Amino acid sequence: MTGRWNTLQLNRDARLRRAQQSLGTQLVGKILSSERIVDLLHAVIESGDRVCLEGNNQKQADFLSSALTGLDAGRVHDLHILQSVLALPEHLDIFEKGIASKLDFSFSGPQAGRLAKLASSGKLNIGAIHTYLELYARYFIDLTPRVALVAAQAADRFGNLYTGANTEDTPTIVEATAFKAGVVIAQVNEIVDTLPRIDIPAGWVDFVVEPPTPHYIEPLFTRDPALISEIQVLMAMMAIKGIYAEYQVERLNHGIGFDTAAIELLLPTYAASLGLKGKIARYWALNPHPALIPAIEAGFVESVYSFGSELGMEDYIRARPDVFFVGADGSMRSNRALCQAAGHYACDMFIGSTLQIDLQGNSSTATLGRISGFGGAPNMGADARGRRHASPAWLKAGQQARAGKNQIPRGQKLVVQIVETFREHMHPAFVETLDAWQLAEQANMAIPPVMIYGDDVTHILTEEGIANLLLCRGEEEREQAIRGVAGYTPVGLARDQRMVDNLRDRGVIQRAEDLGIDKRLATRDLLAAKSMKDLVRASGGLYQPPKRFRNW
Amino acid sequence: MTGRWNTLQLNRDARLRRAQQSLGTQLVGKILSSERIVDLLHAVIESGDRVCLEGNNQKQADFLSSALTGLDAGRVHDLHILQSVLALPEHLDIFEKGIASKLDFSFSGPQAGRLAKLASSGKLNIGAIHTYLELYARYFIDLTPRVALVAAQAADRFGNLYTGANTEDTPTIVEATAFKAGVVIAQVNEIVDTLPRIDIPAGWVDFVVEPPTPHYIEPLFTRDPALISEIQVLMAMMAIKGIYAEYQVERLNHGIGFDTAAIELLLPTYAASLGLKGKIARYWALNPHPALIPAIEAGFVESVYSFGSELGMEDYIRARPDVFFVGADGSMRSNRALCQAAGHYACDMFIGSTLQIDLQGNSSTATLGRISGFGGAPNMGADARGRRHASPAWLKAGQQARAGKNQIPRGQKLVVQIVETFREHMHPAFVETLDAWQLAEQANMAIPPVMIYGDDVTHILTEEGIANLLLCRGEEEREQAIRGVAGYTPVGLARDQRMVDNLRDRGVIQRAEDLGIDKRLATRDLLAAKSMKDLVRASGGLYQPPKRFRNW
Repeated sequence: MTGRWNTLQLNRDARLRRAQQSLGTQLVGKILSSERIVDLLHAVIESGDRVCLEGNNQKQADFLSSALTGLDAGRVHDLHILQSVLALPEHLDIFEKGIASKLDFSFSGPQAGRLAKLASSGKLNIGAIHTYLELYARYFIDLTPRVALVAAQAADRFGNLYTGANTEDTPTIVEATAFKAGVVIAQVNEIVDTLPRIDIPAGWVDFVVEPPTPHYIEPLFTRDPALISEIQVLMAMMAIKGIYAEYQVERLNHGIGFDTAAIELLLPTYAASLGLKGKIARYWALNPHPALIPAIEAGFVESVYSFGSELGMEDYIRARPDVFFVGADGSMRSNRALCQAAGHYACDMFIGSTLQIDLQGNSSTATLGRISGFGGAPNMGADARGRRHASPAWLKAGQQARAGKNQIPRGQKLVVQIVETFREHMHPAFVETLDAWQLAEQANMAIPPVMIYGDDVTHILTEEGIANLLLCRGEEEREQAIRGVAGYTPVGLARDQRMVDNLRDRGVIQRAEDLGIDKRLATRDLLAAKSMKDLVRASGGLYQPPKRFRNW
Repeated sequence: MTGRWNTLQLNRDARLRRAQQSLGTQLVGKILSSERIVDLLHAVIESGDRVCLEGNNQKQADFLSSALTGLDAGRVHDLHILQSVLALPEHLDIFEKGIASKLDFSFSGPQAGRLAKLASSGKLNIGAIHTYLELYARYFIDLTPRVALVAAQAADRFGNLYTGANTEDTPTIVEATAFKAGVVIAQVNEIVDTLPRIDIPAGWVDFVVEPPTPHYIEPLFTRDPALISEIQVLMAMMAIKGIYAEYQVERLNHGIGFDTAAIELLLPTYAASLGLKGKIARYWALNPHPALIPAIEAGFVESVYSFGSELGMEDYIRARPDVFFVGADGSMRSNRALCQAAGHYACDMFIGSTLQIDLQGNSSTATLGRISGFGGAPNMGADARGRRHASPAWLKAGQQARAGKNQIPRGQKLVVQIVETFREHMHPAFVETLDAWQLAEQANMAIPPVMIYGDDVTHILTEEGIANLLLCRGEEEREQAIRGVAGYTPVGLARDQRMVDNLRDRGVIQRAEDLGIDKRLATRDLLAAKSMKDLVRASGGLYQPPKRFRNW
């Protein structure tokens, strides 16, 4: 081949040669000594490269990320960074230093404010904000990485990788890069003779480095039951009786937060008392939430497939292989791409919280001065219109949406937004206009960043009740149904009381009492665990919460 | 562990022990001599098991499938078969023999008639029909396999697998099974000392068997250019000028068939003459269609990521690594799950054919007496409502759909149905009522099997013109727009001529002449290749069509 059709391979060969020349005996097979990492990056990264940096919800290739900041911006600049989660300050330092200039990503949580500043200063050009699976999808179409910087638990001398429980994005990133003549560099916590299992074959990996300290993992899915309020208990009761039981929801995903943690902790108590064991919440696409332990122990949960893992849950998962997906070594294999596909196509319901909901039911966590992205919510909280298999929940939601319309029958995913009408600092959750509009203008986005669109939302649940948007006929009813559960927010106070009463008569709005729920029972006594210690106890001592959650 | 939480692992251990006992020295490590395959299956499969049998669009685990038919139905029965494609007679024999009783699948092509008969006789209970990614998603939620029977190109003595170009479903099936204590059996064409590359690590595989003959692969994506009609050339011109150019479609998927093959063959001629090189059709989620060779050679195509491979394209792919995804060994790695995700989320357009379209734009290939499924079309031909990144095509489609509506801006995928108004045997493609309704009743389905729903379709393209459904306001306009391109079918003849004229004035309907297309130029001369031999020539002799396509 002369180079007309194999420029990527020839270019890759040149990069690998440069690495050999630059590193000499500091490179043994694929293994590099960690103090030479910047030299390796200088050798294999070229200006303008698309570089996929592994930053997940939890696992961070932090050593490689920090090494990137050490590049000489005179030699390497204008990198186009692909990264699902920007969690660490160094993720943005490379833009400040002029090493990178473009970013495609999914979520930026703690860095959202600084990201917005860099974007408006012109130092960082945002390609787009994606939901996770969408970003991975582009790795195979128009955003294929030239270089991937990933993290694993261990490697052997050949370069085989063991990811341990936090497999997450690694296999997908490596597959996209390795099979288009890219360069794959992995940081691993240890190099061993024999791996507990192989998650990624050595042939897909070019370089392995063992940093002085293990990679960072964020315990993102732990919620202390002590912080769950009685309002959240009441909302959880309404969710279980008014939605889970009503639609027979067997397969589901829970968003992160205290609202859904409350539901998880009410399964073995309140839901069990309603005779729902074995009837709802059997199959999950979910990180291993500690709050799910009591429901698992009660036999409520048959299977949990996970996007990533959760710190402290390792021994518990290992001891519950009937429930979790684990390898022959006993530790979990999570896979974010496949779990997002599962959440999209194999779940009947997504339920999660948000910051703002407008009168059409559009919701967003985007607020002024912060560009945070939405992670998995858009993928999970969208009707999966390619879905063709039926379930009672899906059929019933579809029937409600299409009743009285001249349309061919079709099912629909349940997408539930669960929010208290006022959030922290008395900010109303219901607004006339989303901050997303202003943010779009500020940040020069093509359209406002909406997390979940109103026409995908089926229910809004607040402490005031449930609004079933599937049953609304027309925009006006939809607006009043939303106002009718918006409590004492300005949006709620501006309701048309007669229309709201009518919607309640028709069951479009349901209050706790309409569901036969006695509000006096909505106390913390219903929680299957009231503290972190209770969760540890429920796990038989197998769950070992990270220090910051240990208050005893 | 006592067995309360590890029943799957204990059960797996028992199965492996039975295999050891039954096979003795016939089992060397993980390698089994092929004549003992039925004994192995008797040892490791239990009645009622969910068994995932690898049947893809192309690659078939045919030896294992045929071995299944040799099971004693007295010992093993009521298997629940999970299989993406039912292509071979033996796939149904196991139901006739009472070995299996339940089926969850995606596509049954050639077996669709027999499948319908078995279903109505009660010998086969259909769980559901899925699109591919949806079925894989359920492998991780509520349809996790106990036993997986897969096919690969080669294995080494440890059980590492090399899939070659037809990787397809294998990694996904094995991942779901191996990490939930299931049993994985692979048939391989050869056992070698050193694999060209490792696609699946040995630790995920329990047994390997080398059958007397290599596994079957179907060349499903080859279309002989000699069979493309001038009507198809005309339709391809309209597609390119009226849709690809109009929306600047850079990332796309083509359905299978002569209609789309014609478009592929017009890229280096007609599209190039319009100055569209580098502006449309740059990034593809597509099997390696031979008809795409001229466009690749002309530099139209930057990247192709594939679901599977195509027989005869091996050497061509190997010589074009800048375009295709290949491993270090030079052969392709396809991955159907990831490519379906890419087709859903990273493509701006899906264009494909169908058998029937109704007045709401719902389309289906389901016909009476045949239960065929829809493969990837529902996933690719649905608006990806979780998508959040913008592109010109996506924004423009979304603007057209929402013009004049009080809705928050949102993009939309282009979903184009391309059909001649009459199909084979003068069956009209446009109908008042889909056969799917009657089939649903016959086969006792919850809802009619629709391939692509009308509310996901954006354009219908026939030899009479393009109907842009995005621009229709209300059901009546939509119906007339469809009638207005339905030609001399009864549906077309029943059009309201005044409304159709009005729709044409508004650009909702566009005829060839409205697009500035001179119909006299729509000849086969525009095809970049007019025969299989031309395709071979265009490839520089690298493409080697299977015998059945060689007519010289």
